[in-house]
Amino acid sequence: MNISLQQAEKAITAAKAKAAETGTLMNIAVVDAGANLVAFVRMDNAWLGSVEIAQIKARTARYFDMPTGEIGKLSQPGGPLYNIEHSNRGLITFPGGLPIKDSNGTIIGAIGVSGSTVENDHIVAQAGVDGVYADQ
Amino acid sequence: MNISLQQAEKAITAAKAKAAETGTLMNIAVVDAGANLVAFVRMDNAWLGSVEIAQIKARTARYFDMPTGEIGKLSQPGGPLYNIEHSNRGLITFPGGLPIKDSNGTIIGAIGVSGSTVENDHIVAQAGVDGVYADQ
Amino acid sequence: MNISLQQAEKAITAAKAKAAETGTLMNIAVVDAGANLVAFVRMDNAWLGSVEIAQIKARTARYFDMPTGEIGKLSQPGGPLYNIEHSNRGLITFPGGLPIKDSNGTIIGAIGVSGSTVENDHIVAQAGVDGVYADQ
Amino acid sequence: MNISLQQAEKAITAAKAKAAETGTLMNIAVVDAGANLVAFVRMDNAWLGSVEIAQIKARTARYFDMPTGEIGKLSQPGGPLYNIEHSNRGLITFPGGLPIKDSNGTIIGAIGVSGSTVENDHIVAQAGVDGVYADQ
Repeated sequence: MNISLQQAEKAITAAKAKAAETGTLMNIAVVDAGANLVAFVRMDNAWLGSVEIAQIKARTARYFDMPTGEIGKLSQPGGPLYNIEHSNRGLITFPGGLPIKDSNGTIIGAIGVSGSTVENDHIVAQAGVDGVYADQ
Repeated sequence: MNISLQQAEKAITAAKAKAAETGTLMNIAVVDAGANLVAFVRMDNAWLGSVEIAQIKARTARYFDMPTGEIGKLSQPGGPLYNIEHSNRGLITFPGGLPIKDSNGTIIGAIGVSGSTVENDHIVAQAGVDGVYADQ
Repeated sequence: MNISLQQAEKAITAAKAKAAETGTLMNIAVVDAGANLVAFVRMDNAWLGSVEIAQIKARTARYFDMPTGEIGKLSQPGGPLYNIEHSNRGLITFPGGLPIKDSNGTIIGAIGVSGSTVENDHIVAQAGVDGVYADQ
Repeated sequence: MNISLQQAEKAITAAKAKAAETGTLMNIAVVDAGANLVAFVRMDNAWLGSVEIAQIKARTARYFDMPTGEIGKLSQPGGPLYNIEHSNRGLITFPGGLPIKDSNGTIIGAIGVSGSTVENDHIVAQAGVDGVYADQ
């Protein structure tokens, strides 16, 4: 199964709403199960450097089927995955990327958010994940 | 002046409607005046290879402030811009990329469309441009 | 639906047999529906430069859901897709890449073959496609 | 001397068996003495991000003729090879890559495994190395 554009747009709508609620300006990207881009938005005046980071976060979360921040715990100096970021034309391993699952728990894509603190990026990404199956 | 996310979303909505009307499956990208990505959608089952091509078309149209197909006329063997596609980490110089202007004629961004013949790509891109200022 | 490793290995076994039959030395790559690599082999003494070309052919065939040679007809000087090869970190648009479909006609992946003339590359790729559903 | 495709396939078969035995889903790559790819498989549902990491591990192990994890001990902050991962279009220096030797101890290639913990990756890679000369 693969995320549809409609589902991706629901994720982005929910993420944008959470960004507005938290007073942040975000770049938001959604990839499908094959890690290919489905949808992207940059809120007005959001960081330009986050255009790519949001996309890489989404890709990284799908590449390893876990939140990006979990990888970052393992890629520190002395950690088991030190410098994994050098692979795959660049990975981002701090929070803000999350897998998206269907109702059976199968991963169908991922979301990546970048534009504020990593804590805020994560909160907005989670809102996007929750939005996929919410009534809107 | 710079295109807003709201304007970019209007362009994408209009382009998606034209794609549906023409029975095509498109990747649609909008960049701002700085040639940085503002919004992107891939319609379900649209070509994966067009994810990047749509973005490059939008970028190319803003890089040179003209329709991508105009550059392609000049980049042929023997032409004055032969192989300009090697620059800027890759350009696309066939139709489907168009500048977006404000009501004063100032360029505020560009749209790139990829997923069908270049004729269809151009038609859908033009619908996106027209959609920026349409009532919806 | 996505090609399985078992199906990819059947494609490669059939392609290797056809290469042996035609007296050629091939690089053979299979990607899934998301254009991600599933399996690859290089026959002893096959061209090193074809390691990447085989993979790009498979990726290109899935990116545009058609035989790579069909794209090449359109990307010539003066053609509608001139220099499309500059996108997507490089495309290969001569024969040797073919989509792989399931029994319903849905594309589940693609195969790319490189190591001889493009005619031979195409023949070996077609044998790989045919091998996916053959009894072995 | 150079590893043959037949030897590479024996390594992959043995590595896949060990992966199954340990309940892991692996990407497995084998390169030859020239560090060029010979064979690759991705087990169904193995991490997409490990497609490239498995290949880089194999390449890294041959580039320096030692287990990748040995390089990682030297590339930490303050270490003699700090940030060596920036070279060669990206290296991976945590465990999972091992040189493959012939019966005289000459290095004929390398294997790279990625898809689980680095401990499991190393175990499966070692099984691959052992499989080259095993009766099957």
